[in-house]
Amino acid sequence: MKIINDVKFLIVGLGLIGGSYAQALTDLGYEVGAITRSQSSIDYAKEKGLIAHGTTEVTKEYVNQFDVVVFALYPKVLIEWLEKYQGYFKSGVLITDVTGVKGPIVYKIQELLRDDVEFVGAHPMAGREVYGVQNADKSIFRNANYIVTPTSKNTKDGIEACKSLGKILGFKTIAELSPEKHDEMIGFLSQLTHCIAVSLMTCKESENLVDYTGDSFRDLTRIAKINEDMWCELFLLNKTELLSQMDLFIDKFQELKSSIESSDTEKMKSIMRTSTKRRAFFDKK
Amino acid sequence: MKIINDVKFLIVGLGLIGGSYAQALTDLGYEVGAITRSQSSIDYAKEKGLIAHGTTEVTKEYVNQFDVVVFALYPKVLIEWLEKYQGYFKSGVLITDVTGVKGPIVYKIQELLRDDVEFVGAHPMAGREVYGVQNADKSIFRNANYIVTPTSKNTKDGIEACKSLGKILGFKTIAELSPEKHDEMIGFLSQLTHCIAVSLMTCKESENLVDYTGDSFRDLTRIAKINEDMWCELFLLNKTELLSQMDLFIDKFQELKSSIESSDTEKMKSIMRTSTKRRAFFDKK
Repeated sequence: MKIINDVKFLIVGLGLIGGSYAQALTDLGYEVGAITRSQSSIDYAKEKGLIAHGTTEVTKEYVNQFDVVVFALYPKVLIEWLEKYQGYFKSGVLITDVTGVKGPIVYKIQELLRDDVEFVGAHPMAGREVYGVQNADKSIFRNANYIVTPTSKNTKDGIEACKSLGKILGFKTIAELSPEKHDEMIGFLSQLTHCIAVSLMTCKESENLVDYTGDSFRDLTRIAKINEDMWCELFLLNKTELLSQMDLFIDKFQELKSSIESSDTEKMKSIMRTSTKRRAFFDKK
Repeated sequence: MKIINDVKFLIVGLGLIGGSYAQALTDLGYEVGAITRSQSSIDYAKEKGLIAHGTTEVTKEYVNQFDVVVFALYPKVLIEWLEKYQGYFKSGVLITDVTGVKGPIVYKIQELLRDDVEFVGAHPMAGREVYGVQNADKSIFRNANYIVTPTSKNTKDGIEACKSLGKILGFKTIAELSPEKHDEMIGFLSQLTHCIAVSLMTCKESENLVDYTGDSFRDLTRIAKINEDMWCELFLLNKTELLSQMDLFIDKFQELKSSIESSDTEKMKSIMRTSTKRRAFFDKK
């Protein structure tokens, strides 16, 4: 299946990400429909021209018309939705998602899904510290990475179509990773960083610190403003991997702490040089 | 002493911060001189109009002409300089510094200094991940905090003059803290954050991670590109305070980790809510 002009897209879950997908696809000329829980989100998205139509009711008649379905739901709700309504899909439909954890999601979905529809997992690594379709903004994809996580159950065409979707949405890079590699990587780059930011932010009352706060603390805690329902679910879905990344970080932090404790300047400087050298790769891109 | 128009400023140490002070003061119409180790820094600063004149030689004849002296040196070098050359100051001169740790510096300087000159400690909380006078840029002060750390040895006029300097340099906020409170605050807001960033950056080889890295990891490691000589000195000068801030962070991080380990969603969410609430204070300013 290739994504071509007469494809109709359904977005299930009109939040920040679902709404941004809808905006990007509508602006490209596709017909985009939506299913979401709140009527006000549908009304808003229609008024702003993000979608052509939408509904809060899941009916076969509505679902049946779409060629590609993007799920922008919380993981558990996504699984429940598919268990309940997968009978409504048109045969041959391509399904994808935006979930931030892949291993526990992708295999489960592929196992429970009908044989005549294909699910290709995807993770758009884009977001903001605000939520809801009211904050939808396709420009968040511009400098972001889009990761497709196929399994042996996926077809070459399905994988290619899912990658094409990332491309037309405007992502900077499209990558392919196994669900396991994805979760390891995201456990480190995204989940661990959120754990660090949250822990740092909860160390002290902050009101009296604001006047003295420079960019360093602000940068390290930007993501400490966190959607507790979503992140709690994502952390627990990737628990083993996340805990091992947290242990790795604690080891490194304790190593630096020991070097300070013993005033081991050579060790301290060697750690800082490694850090400086490794950070430099990020400046080049 | 008030900072008025016919005051002559001497900057000792023409690096990023010294050079930015020089630029701001010269642009305001003050006569600014400089003493620094490398002739090329003097040449560059003169050519770019950051200073009126400068020298690599410390002579009484040169030092003697200035009313305000700003030291932008590493802590140890600063103490050594004053021990060696304080006889060269004109009587009544105001001395200040830019050092990131105050307790071990301010009292030592005030103890060793002649009675007819006044030292008021200051910490301009501005910086970049680049170094040297070639990167001097007075705009780094615009959104930054300037903290004056007076002691009982300081005069009201001296403190006011030092605050005025922060104001004319263009800092957003001018605050006053005791050297001890300053070091506690900086141990948390600045040194701990650098320890976290460095530890995170040294966890893994980074070259293969670049393609998957979103804003979170980039934000948390921006300050991981670090000047090891300067930070090593600052960490050790503030060792006791920094170690206690590191312990506080480890406690909070372990608390979050335990809640994940035991899948205690109520605890996880409660931590995240505190984090979100505390981070919100930073959005308002």
